[in-house]
Amino acid sequence: VFEEQPASALSAHPFDQAIALTPHGADTFSGHTSPAYWNMVGPFGGISAAVVLNAVMQHASRLGEPVSLTINYASAMVPGVFTVSARAARTNRSTQHWIVEVFQTSQAGAQETVLTACAITAIRRDTWGVNDMPMPPVPAPQDVARQTVDVPLEWLKRYELRMVNGKMPSTFDGLENGGALETASLTQVWLRDEPPRAPDFCALAAFADVFYPRVYLRRPSPVPVGTVSMTVYFHASRADLAACGHGYVLGQARGQVFRDGFFDQSAQLWSESGTLLVTSLQIVYFKE
Amino acid sequence: VFEEQPASALSAHPFDQAIALTPHGADTFSGHTSPAYWNMVGPFGGISAAVVLNAVMQHASRLGEPVSLTINYASAMVPGVFTVSARAARTNRSTQHWIVEVFQTSQAGAQETVLTACAITAIRRDTWGVNDMPMPPVPAPQDVARQTVDVPLEWLKRYELRMVNGKMPSTFDGLENGGALETASLTQVWLRDEPPRAPDFCALAAFADVFYPRVYLRRPSPVPVGTVSMTVYFHASRADLAACGHGYVLGQARGQVFRDGFFDQSAQLWSESGTLLVTSLQIVYFKE
Repeated sequence: VFEEQPASALSAHPFDQAIALTPHGADTFSGHTSPAYWNMVGPFGGISAAVVLNAVMQHASRLGEPVSLTINYASAMVPGVFTVSARAARTNRSTQHWIVEVFQTSQAGAQETVLTACAITAIRRDTWGVNDMPMPPVPAPQDVARQTVDVPLEWLKRYELRMVNGKMPSTFDGLENGGALETASLTQVWLRDEPPRAPDFCALAAFADVFYPRVYLRRPSPVPVGTVSMTVYFHASRADLAACGHGYVLGQARGQVFRDGFFDQSAQLWSESGTLLVTSLQIVYFKE
Repeated sequence: VFEEQPASALSAHPFDQAIALTPHGADTFSGHTSPAYWNMVGPFGGISAAVVLNAVMQHASRLGEPVSLTINYASAMVPGVFTVSARAARTNRSTQHWIVEVFQTSQAGAQETVLTACAITAIRRDTWGVNDMPMPPVPAPQDVARQTVDVPLEWLKRYELRMVNGKMPSTFDGLENGGALETASLTQVWLRDEPPRAPDFCALAAFADVFYPRVYLRRPSPVPVGTVSMTVYFHASRADLAACGHGYVLGQARGQVFRDGFFDQSAQLWSESGTLLVTSLQIVYFKE
């Protein structure tokens, strides 16, 4: 399928290959799932978020830069081709509202929705501003041990993760993590693409989903989990992104509540120099 | 237009009247904007969220209860009728993915998108759970003064607000709110419908948008503002809602970052007895 893909797919980087889309008319693109970003029973949710956002970024009618993205994981995708429909439902003077839907063809030949999403792009203007979520005090990335991948998840090999706090428990004993509620499900991690890649908006969308499930930290038990919806707000300008270079991004994630089969995850991403790039909220299904 | 509306519109409560929808075929509803919930240049964003969710709730094919709702405010609505398209893009065994779009007819006769939304409903099951965001220590609602409405916003009269912390500044001097970053844009408020109404999922969606713009607290300056996207996660079961009765709900909201014309707002809602009902994130446009 790679023969059909545009020049960007020729980038050596697996991220660019994974999110590459081929246009078919104004509002339709096709792509192919990436074995390099495979998770347990489907693609890594972050790569799907990046694909959806990339359809908006590649759209000829796009106005401005991403402000928000909500992606809903309707079904695990199967390996193979998919179709992306990306439509500007409303274009204002400085904001634009997108509805995105991703389809795969079932074995029976039916076109089935596997992802839904909405996004807003906008022309952002310089204003007064303040960051009330400064980067927490953490050691430099070079002073934090790199995580070795000991689980059979291909996508994890695509990220360099240096866990500052809240690393994945090694024992899944089903016991609740004691201690302060503020930190009982808190993970702080330095991260970047492997190999390093200067982050763009699509990379940030993927980074927002890089945290392992909060329930595994809060009550380590090997229960099935899956993100059902993720919202990502982009606070970074292109200049902020350019300033990231190949540096690390600090990610922080925490669950606020776990109940009746779902938990949420509040997350932030900062550049290595402390610029708050992204705030995010997601809701995740878990069993038992 | 009220003659066309279903039995629920006959409820004396203005909230029920405002969210009332008339079905037109499987996936289409019509409604009418409510003067009772009018904001500055359009309806209160919370009532639009409630309308959108109500289309899902009223849909004959709905599976389960709301888990997530993202609403995007594409354009200020004009007074009058609107059309809601609510479509189940995917129905799984226990989750269902909705795409909702709200239209109004322009003066030129064109059907224009004014709201887009996506929602997930699910059959929730009893599981292990823990609340890591307990209700903050606040005085009882009866011990907090009721806010008097001194701004000409009709929708504010539809809520009883008792501001615990972070009330709207009386002087808009453009000076940054000093003090700790954690509380510089923090509001905690007891709230309920006026007149009291036992909250349902639609009411919670509206409650999530009841906070005045965080920028007005963080740097009181009379700048134009408007929510562009709001995500609401529902953690409450029907039993949790029933337990609320006509009691108050505690709302908490805080901005994480203000930059380049947008700020975000992280929010939580608890029942009077301390059950975390909702977590939410929204992003708001501001000028200057």
